[in-house]
Amino acid sequence: MRFTLSQEFWAEFFGTMVLLLFGAGVVAMVQLFGSNPPIPGQIVNGGYTNITLGWGFAVIMGIYIAGTVSGAHLNPAVTIALAATGRFPWAKAPAYIIAQVLGAFLGAAIVFAVYYAKWIQVDPTLSNTAGVFSTFPAVPGFWPGFIDQVVGTALLMALILAIGDKLNNKQGAAFAPLVVGFVVMAIGMSFGGMHGYAINPARDFGPRLFSVLAGFQNNGLTDGSGVWLIPIIGPIVGAILGALAYDLVIGRSLIRAHAKHEEISGTDPTHKETV
Amino acid sequence: MRFTLSQEFWAEFFGTMVLLLFGAGVVAMVQLFGSNPPIPGQIVNGGYTNITLGWGFAVIMGIYIAGTVSGAHLNPAVTIALAATGRFPWAKAPAYIIAQVLGAFLGAAIVFAVYYAKWIQVDPTLSNTAGVFSTFPAVPGFWPGFIDQVVGTALLMALILAIGDKLNNKQGAAFAPLVVGFVVMAIGMSFGGMHGYAINPARDFGPRLFSVLAGFQNNGLTDGSGVWLIPIIGPIVGAILGALAYDLVIGRSLIRAHAKHEEISGTDPTHKETV
Amino acid sequence: MRFTLSQEFWAEFFGTMVLLLFGAGVVAMVQLFGSNPPIPGQIVNGGYTNITLGWGFAVIMGIYIAGTVSGAHLNPAVTIALAATGRFPWAKAPAYIIAQVLGAFLGAAIVFAVYYAKWIQVDPTLSNTAGVFSTFPAVPGFWPGFIDQVVGTALLMALILAIGDKLNNKQGAAFAPLVVGFVVMAIGMSFGGMHGYAINPARDFGPRLFSVLAGFQNNGLTDGSGVWLIPIIGPIVGAILGALAYDLVIGRSLIRAHAKHEEISGTDPTHKETV
Amino acid sequence: MRFTLSQEFWAEFFGTMVLLLFGAGVVAMVQLFGSNPPIPGQIVNGGYTNITLGWGFAVIMGIYIAGTVSGAHLNPAVTIALAATGRFPWAKAPAYIIAQVLGAFLGAAIVFAVYYAKWIQVDPTLSNTAGVFSTFPAVPGFWPGFIDQVVGTALLMALILAIGDKLNNKQGAAFAPLVVGFVVMAIGMSFGGMHGYAINPARDFGPRLFSVLAGFQNNGLTDGSGVWLIPIIGPIVGAILGALAYDLVIGRSLIRAHAKHEEISGTDPTHKETV
Repeated sequence: MRFTLSQEFWAEFFGTMVLLLFGAGVVAMVQLFGSNPPIPGQIVNGGYTNITLGWGFAVIMGIYIAGTVSGAHLNPAVTIALAATGRFPWAKAPAYIIAQVLGAFLGAAIVFAVYYAKWIQVDPTLSNTAGVFSTFPAVPGFWPGFIDQVVGTALLMALILAIGDKLNNKQGAAFAPLVVGFVVMAIGMSFGGMHGYAINPARDFGPRLFSVLAGFQNNGLTDGSGVWLIPIIGPIVGAILGALAYDLVIGRSLIRAHAKHEEISGTDPTHKETV
Repeated sequence: MRFTLSQEFWAEFFGTMVLLLFGAGVVAMVQLFGSNPPIPGQIVNGGYTNITLGWGFAVIMGIYIAGTVSGAHLNPAVTIALAATGRFPWAKAPAYIIAQVLGAFLGAAIVFAVYYAKWIQVDPTLSNTAGVFSTFPAVPGFWPGFIDQVVGTALLMALILAIGDKLNNKQGAAFAPLVVGFVVMAIGMSFGGMHGYAINPARDFGPRLFSVLAGFQNNGLTDGSGVWLIPIIGPIVGAILGALAYDLVIGRSLIRAHAKHEEISGTDPTHKETV
Repeated sequence: MRFTLSQEFWAEFFGTMVLLLFGAGVVAMVQLFGSNPPIPGQIVNGGYTNITLGWGFAVIMGIYIAGTVSGAHLNPAVTIALAATGRFPWAKAPAYIIAQVLGAFLGAAIVFAVYYAKWIQVDPTLSNTAGVFSTFPAVPGFWPGFIDQVVGTALLMALILAIGDKLNNKQGAAFAPLVVGFVVMAIGMSFGGMHGYAINPARDFGPRLFSVLAGFQNNGLTDGSGVWLIPIIGPIVGAILGALAYDLVIGRSLIRAHAKHEEISGTDPTHKETV
Repeated sequence: MRFTLSQEFWAEFFGTMVLLLFGAGVVAMVQLFGSNPPIPGQIVNGGYTNITLGWGFAVIMGIYIAGTVSGAHLNPAVTIALAATGRFPWAKAPAYIIAQVLGAFLGAAIVFAVYYAKWIQVDPTLSNTAGVFSTFPAVPGFWPGFIDQVVGTALLMALILAIGDKLNNKQGAAFAPLVVGFVVMAIGMSFGGMHGYAINPARDFGPRLFSVLAGFQNNGLTDGSGVWLIPIIGPIVGAILGALAYDLVIGRSLIRAHAKHEEISGTDPTHKETV
């Protein structure tokens, strides 16, 4: 099945909106319902375990929405790394990236609407909860967050390729949405501390833009901290490095072994492994 | 295989009963065994992480029970949204909804029987644990809970369609029960704070009715709070909106692309993608 | 493939041993490493969430070990309910049950050996940690624990049949080990409070016997409490009720619909659904 | 497809590096962000539940990277046990083991780089956080840790064989990476207390070597404690015992039953079960 760029645009938009609905939603849950359960005995804060599971589920849901129509990049760093390694046409990249940022913006806005009544009780001046929408560094400075974002996104990209490569993962294609979600759970558990595992410029910048327009203080964009740049540059650099590392160490070996295998077994057009 | 409406009725009844057994059960665990472990060193409270996982497992189990016979709606909002979008005959809807409410009622009653001995120790006047059975708002008023229920159920419905649509998810049909359970885990983690993620009128009203008959105070139905209405209206509105959004953004693109694909490849009756 | 009863005996023995290694192991972790991390900053207690996940994984592992050779009952209540509903020969049941109890006994003994050095630091008189091996009631008396065990095991058995029934779950057979593990996670989360979700006479009695021989006090067998009987009788009654409920509400409908379907479509011997 | 030893070497190297990135990463998260969230309200410590899930995901990711090219041993104990039971050529074992240790070393080094800025705030003298990289005993002495490592790795190895054995697990081959990850989650939950569930000499020794070179005190190698030996010897002994136990109790029964089945059904070359 082939889709028009317009259909792909709206799928990316919808998928990234769903990603942010669940993603920003779970952070809102933990930050807004932290220590004061709304009614006695009712507990709605699952802590960091829920944040990592919740963002992973968010990715799974976004892929189920957009996977067939647009390929569910949901992430400009993924789009750029796929284009940089010849897997996706550069011409489509701008439309994808715009859709992702707009979808993330809208997802963040809906989360704010859902939690508004609670939000203004917990943080009436909107001065310390911008972290629901976008990521902030644990240690000030450019390099700590940048290294973290490069490593985290390199892992994301290398694993997306490993999971999606038909030569590497023949039997498990049906698992791809789940396993990519597990990758994001794993990155959150193992690389969530230094810069909130943005690993996705749209997931970070779209909601940050919303937080500015909604009047949040200390938003990382208009507060002079320059925080907003790291989760844009870091993920793009990391995704390209991750894709190159996968191709160099694994992808190239698979292509060579496959070519040799084809040579020996002939060019039978019905041969399954060529599909 | 075709089933009679009576067979479908009892499958929906049994499936929704199982849903509530696990669902109300896990909330009972966290609320009744909160801070006083029954014997020293024994801990049975898994907190909100367990609540979200437990309700997700509850849905998975309900689907395994009822999926083949009745389609496992287990939720009047799902039944109505499927009917409203032409996917399910309106004529069957009343039987399904009655089965769901009665099954949920019985599931709640069995949970009360299982935990009765502990319950009367923790809350002898049954005045602050109705939340085991049904949902309550974190912030008073109609709109906060209503918006929350609309958004949560819209996500549920859009994702049920995305997962069940053969054009969208060809390879992963066998995963459907698990993934729909993950959707509910995700909604609990990300949208459980404002109104306890009822997202299902039967799951909320059936057990609430039981709580009234069992003598629970502050039950949201006979206490004049009017709480019971929101988790009925909100989910129905949300499920219809979610189904329309999926059809508009994803479903329509798939149908068009598929039709074009069929046109090109001819009308081979054995062609697999037409199944 | 057909196996001898001796091969099946040893598979059940090995599978139930693995079940107890993981199951008693995770309870040992939470009880023995409760509040004093062995080295500063090192935390090894995952609380009740880990207990429920850990027992679920224990079941998954036991099924992967014994599933093909013996069918991985791992539980006398399952064996008896399968026999009572004509799914398993009564003649084999005693051998299966003996293997299960002995395997559970050995698994418990190995867990004691692994944690011995820590155990004698935490509970030198072995007077309050028998709960690592077997289950105890949260509220004294026969009925609270009995009702809990009946309901929990009825759910286990109904779901095992729902998952294993080829007419009900055609596509998902490969998932069966995982999903049955999820059932046990769900039972732990939702029905673990009143009697520690034994839901398995061998899992409870074998390790309890070990705890008596190893010198544990307050073991529920030689302390005059009579606790040991409930997790034997309750699960057997529950498993039979669960199997009957499944057959009555779901299984019978599937068999009738299938028979009608076969009648219409003829008796094509290659017809897949007859397999 | 066939691969050169050099290709396999780099796949093992890359896979074990990814294993340690996620594995040491999640321990760094819990130890370094323990009680002081970086910004108010931001919580990044998921406790022991996240450690066990995170190491399990680490294994899943390592298998997706290296599974097709090298078989993803990622563990010298696995390599040796496979060789000892005739499943892997001894001649390749040294290259695999060197790749694993070097990959684990590099993974640990990258984790240190990512968390460096935070690390020197929390433990400026690098004297009490070597446990991020390698394992330490909960109780002093050789035997407690040794027994624990033998049992844990025996379970790992028996289950790897059970999951990978085509006679035992015909339908679920596509699940293997996930289920092996679940095995490691289960071992962490049930056998993580006595010696940090190293169950892998490369995962322990490579990072320990890095911790020595990076200047960590109390590293178990240069501090005279002799700790480093146990997670090398224990896992090798355990993996061999686990492989022998699987072959004795399960594998042998499957081979015999399969041979008998083949005898009866003839030697049809298209017979699926012989594949």
